Amino acid sequence: MPEQALVERSSIRHALPIEVTEYVDFYSSLEHATNMGKLFRPGMEPLTPNWRWLPIGYHGRCGSITASGTPVPRPSGQRKDSQEGAPIYAPSRMLDFERELAFVTGAGPARSVAPDEAEEYIFGVALLNDWSARDIQAWEYQPLGPFLGKSFATSLGPWIVMLDALEAFRVPGPRQEPAPLPHLAADGAHAFDIALEVSMSTERMRSGGRPPHIVTRVNSSGLYWSMAQQLAHVTSNGSPLRAGSLYASGTISGVQPGSYGSMAELSSLGREPILMPSGERRSFLEDGDTVMMSGGCAREGLASIGLGTLTGSII
Amino acid sequence: MPEQALVERSSIRHALPIEVTEYVDFYSSLEHATNMGKLFRPGMEPLTPNWRWLPIGYHGRCGSITASGTPVPRPSGQRKDSQEGAPIYAPSRMLDFERELAFVTGAGPARSVAPDEAEEYIFGVALLNDWSARDIQAWEYQPLGPFLGKSFATSLGPWIVMLDALEAFRVPGPRQEPAPLPHLAADGAHAFDIALEVSMSTERMRSGGRPPHIVTRVNSSGLYWSMAQQLAHVTSNGSPLRAGSLYASGTISGVQPGSYGSMAELSSLGREPILMPSGERRSFLEDGDTVMMSGGCAREGLASIGLGTLTGSII
Repeated sequence: MPEQALVERSSIRHALPIEVTEYVDFYSSLEHATNMGKLFRPGMEPLTPNWRWLPIGYHGRCGSITASGTPVPRPSGQRKDSQEGAPIYAPSRMLDFERELAFVTGAGPARSVAPDEAEEYIFGVALLNDWSARDIQAWEYQPLGPFLGKSFATSLGPWIVMLDALEAFRVPGPRQEPAPLPHLAADGAHAFDIALEVSMSTERMRSGGRPPHIVTRVNSSGLYWSMAQQLAHVTSNGSPLRAGSLYASGTISGVQPGSYGSMAELSSLGREPILMPSGERRSFLEDGDTVMMSGGCAREGLASIGLGTLTGSII
Repeated sequence: MPEQALVERSSIRHALPIEVTEYVDFYSSLEHATNMGKLFRPGMEPLTPNWRWLPIGYHGRCGSITASGTPVPRPSGQRKDSQEGAPIYAPSRMLDFERELAFVTGAGPARSVAPDEAEEYIFGVALLNDWSARDIQAWEYQPLGPFLGKSFATSLGPWIVMLDALEAFRVPGPRQEPAPLPHLAADGAHAFDIALEVSMSTERMRSGGRPPHIVTRVNSSGLYWSMAQQLAHVTSNGSPLRAGSLYASGTISGVQPGSYGSMAELSSLGREPILMPSGERRSFLEDGDTVMMSGGCAREGLASIGLGTLTGSII
């Protein structure tokens, strides 16, 4: 084989795999929504009354979705400390990652699509890091939802893996209580057994030759609302689907602290910083920190399927 | 002039004037935000603490933005009556219009743009009707904002009028108290003296030969947050601007009931229905109703500038 046909793996730079026509971010992990409710609205019921009836979601910014490897500049924004009378505009001090699984659609009809037919419109799945500035978000999000605390950057994984390739890893999702209304109810199994992992490295770790440190592991099969239900919900008002649209799960967290999908949850909003192997502590992301997300399916006797690695560094 | 070169005005069908790359909806009218706070969160402070510090906004759906004249099918969705234990999925009973003024951008830099330079990136302005299903919206919008209550359809006006053409109608905006933080503060006048009007007709009115009935009039110069400030806010986290992005003001309401920009406000959520010339009453939009928005600038001694008429009918 001629040498010219081979490319050094380390020399590869990933491009954005699609031109994003629409971006929606859901909030489909029961554990994440519960954790965030406790952290952001302490003393109140963590789940809003609608949470178990529909997959809550909101539209995000298409133009700041970037490829794996693209550095993420620390955003500035308005925040307000509860003790202060007025907000300030300053660089975010609570920069976070969110580990998500996203899917990409083809075009679809302008009618309500049932969960059991929704996957026909899903091209494939990819890793997604929904970078979040928690201080900006906390101040801005009432009453119309997240905006600038999210819109500065969203990193999309390098590979979109077709749903057909994941067929052997299809599993039933968690029991849903109350039972979904008919337009969101599914007969089939629409969850997928994908192991997801997030590692971090700091500048000191890298200069000391230390490998990245795994901070959280979870399996996507525990996600409360399935991709099929998310898509059924989106079309339930007659909104048509477009090719190249990106739908993210929302942060995926598990029951155990080691499975939480964001630093806000892992560090309890900074009250219990994460200890890194270098001895450094992290409540939120510092400049020079690199976040690596990876995911894949593996079972004895089957070829393993990888979603690749999604990296991004704070600059 | 050869007859073939002339086109019957009534035969014209408007197309969408741009391919929308990003859609943001603001909430920039003090009067509208106050009215909606009172209607949707009775007994609470109508404005959230952030409202006077930043132009609140959220991303919307690009793919359901349609041209003037495109019919709007009544959406179905989940809603929950406060007396009921469970929500239902059914056609919306609280379908509304929202009178807005939108602007379209060119591309911009990935840095914070000051209000006094923001208009360099604005191509022009257009009318926008942000159709809203209030029952779907009320149930879904906590905690992440409006989603399916808005995403079924948004109608964009037929003409994008360049900002240069409006120069003679530039006026100072309302006094802002507290003074905006430096990144949102402007020296120049960034409001525009544009008269906006909404008319409605019902099937019975049209078959009886009645003309459309004007239901609300307002002037855009009263908008609390200017387009320049909206755009400065969007870029304040380093998010770059893209050509063809659409930024809507949010419903524009005035102080008097006859200037309110939505039926929710005009009818007090249905408690005081609007009386039409046919004797019919409207709390919200019925099938067959047509909504016409128009806008323009006029002053003695100057050529008048029109934004055209934006129409849409519920089917």
